[in-house]
Amino acid sequence: MKRLLMTPGPTPVAPETQLAMAQPMIHHRAPAFMDILAKVREDLKYLFQTEQEVLMFAATGTGAMEGAVANTLSPGDTALVVDGGKFGERWAELCEVYGIKVDRLKVEWGYAVKPQEVEARLTANPAIKAVFVQANETSTAVAHPVQELAQVVKKFPHTILVVDAISALGGYPLPMDEWGLDVVVAGSQKAMMLPPGMAFAALSPKAWEMVKTSTCPKYYFDFAKQLKSQAKNQTAYTSAVTLTIGLMQVLGWFREQGLERIFARNARMARACRAAVAAMGLELFSKEYPSDVLTAVQAPAGIDGQKVVAKMREKGIWIAGGQAQAKGRIFRIAHMGYIDEQDLLGTLGALESVLNDLGYKVELGVGVKAAQEILGKEA
Amino acid sequence: MKRLLMTPGPTPVAPETQLAMAQPMIHHRAPAFMDILAKVREDLKYLFQTEQEVLMFAATGTGAMEGAVANTLSPGDTALVVDGGKFGERWAELCEVYGIKVDRLKVEWGYAVKPQEVEARLTANPAIKAVFVQANETSTAVAHPVQELAQVVKKFPHTILVVDAISALGGYPLPMDEWGLDVVVAGSQKAMMLPPGMAFAALSPKAWEMVKTSTCPKYYFDFAKQLKSQAKNQTAYTSAVTLTIGLMQVLGWFREQGLERIFARNARMARACRAAVAAMGLELFSKEYPSDVLTAVQAPAGIDGQKVVAKMREKGIWIAGGQAQAKGRIFRIAHMGYIDEQDLLGTLGALESVLNDLGYKVELGVGVKAAQEILGKEA
Repeated sequence: MKRLLMTPGPTPVAPETQLAMAQPMIHHRAPAFMDILAKVREDLKYLFQTEQEVLMFAATGTGAMEGAVANTLSPGDTALVVDGGKFGERWAELCEVYGIKVDRLKVEWGYAVKPQEVEARLTANPAIKAVFVQANETSTAVAHPVQELAQVVKKFPHTILVVDAISALGGYPLPMDEWGLDVVVAGSQKAMMLPPGMAFAALSPKAWEMVKTSTCPKYYFDFAKQLKSQAKNQTAYTSAVTLTIGLMQVLGWFREQGLERIFARNARMARACRAAVAAMGLELFSKEYPSDVLTAVQAPAGIDGQKVVAKMREKGIWIAGGQAQAKGRIFRIAHMGYIDEQDLLGTLGALESVLNDLGYKVELGVGVKAAQEILGKEA
Repeated sequence: MKRLLMTPGPTPVAPETQLAMAQPMIHHRAPAFMDILAKVREDLKYLFQTEQEVLMFAATGTGAMEGAVANTLSPGDTALVVDGGKFGERWAELCEVYGIKVDRLKVEWGYAVKPQEVEARLTANPAIKAVFVQANETSTAVAHPVQELAQVVKKFPHTILVVDAISALGGYPLPMDEWGLDVVVAGSQKAMMLPPGMAFAALSPKAWEMVKTSTCPKYYFDFAKQLKSQAKNQTAYTSAVTLTIGLMQVLGWFREQGLERIFARNARMARACRAAVAAMGLELFSKEYPSDVLTAVQAPAGIDGQKVVAKMREKGIWIAGGQAQAKGRIFRIAHMGYIDEQDLLGTLGALESVLNDLGYKVELGVGVKAAQEILGKEA
């Protein structure tokens, strides 16, 4: 059965990328592969909008998140964790595993952290060495105000801002150097349009300074070691060869299209999706800063969000349900990476039918039309 | 240019596997993928020859090695590390990173560890909680006598045997349950014929007992968490979706061929390769227990092993050089996974020409013939 993948990671992989990755295997220490790594290193800097080296790991995003904790902090340190969803919780869990004291800034699911609250906590507790946050909290589809957070954290010379950009990077603007983000972590399988299995981390000079004194144990995710290897166009351990080849192909696409155009398109799809949801009489789960890369929708009263997901899947369309406390209450539609405007219109059309089937009456076409008007107007 | 990949990992990937992995992306929490995980879980037990769950990680083998240390031991514990090559050193480094005291049993490169020496160390130091060893030390092409080591370690009720089988598993016999191995670590890109990016670990009940009391920090490579997730046909974090699909395809091939036949073929290729090397008047680098999955050859006097590698690459054949102290002194030829007898004959033929070109005179065909005789006799 034909499938339309509209989940916020993994997202669809372009056939061109699949072909690139289906090339005969090559050895990761051979000159031919080192040339690929050299190219990828340059293009990753473009994508991250940084002059710093972007570290590559054969792992999924959580691995690089673990690395971000273990390479910058030491047991006994204090960290401020913005916890506004499933992935905020992950930062807290990771810190606790490494014996780092967690000052937890709880944010109600569906809302964004307030920069002034972060500033108040940092002022109240000068021991805080790092602030951990999601750029896009995938579980709630809220984009935390990372630029404003960076302005706050900059005032504290011994504190870094660590951003989980796994579902954000390549999806909407997050210029690392311009905004002054200290650690940016990303993953291959979302806006980067690759299969899962590669994770990335880039560090500011301020963050690299902290690496020097960090005493947490690390080996596979040893950032300093990886930095040294990449300077020689190698990875510290075996490279994810096929994914790296796919990455080269995808980064070429990012260069060719240009970040601005890609970001504008995702933002347009997001506005169209939100307009469609409103036209169907539904509410967003994201009460503030709804994300440009996915939309989280509250299931209509009396209808299980998981049922919406299951019914959509019967039509060949894979959307995501809610996670943890949001399970059953919401469903989520991605609009990033290789997902295009036609995919979104098809999904919205199918959603109208599914909602009707489940007993929530929607006039067919009303959401699609609302989306079309936005997509058309700004094409 | 056409390439023949004869390196001990990554090894060639079969076109059938590449096709399987080029299927449209699917979501890792969807039923269709959970069915794949269920199948793969069963078939991995066949490959590992165990009734224990085989844990899967999106990482390369070193990640699972790190997990093996961090999940079974605690800071302050003592470990005996068999250090007879680059990967033995890696066990020692990993233990040290986690604050584990290392009793290092140095073995000269090219030689195998003596089980009685391990027994003597264990008897002398009852604090040793784990013995770390390579099944196949890829840097020297020596297969340590793992079965005998298991018999020794079994006498010590509070000590486990941890085996790095990254280049061995699926290449030659290593029946985990029958031999009583406590932890077996493997990787996707060697005898398992997949691209790099998946790592595996299986634990005996004795090892799982130690997991309960281990206090090393771990998150991405948290074995207990992964075990729980796999019981629900999930992985703790995002699955390496494409590699898992490739794995299902490859494991079907292992089932269809049967381990015995695959092991016999690799052993035959190993004997043929060694006979060819001898016929060319060259010496093996592996003085004891030369491995069935790769052959390490001493470069002729006055000829740089790296030059042999470079000249072979000019012919489109990628073999491996030496690592660390063996760099320049040796070259290594793999014979496992998707590499077949014809690949080996072609490689040996090219090697004869290259050696002549470099000034080491070999009668053309002498090595190939020696190999043919063995391959033919036992076909």
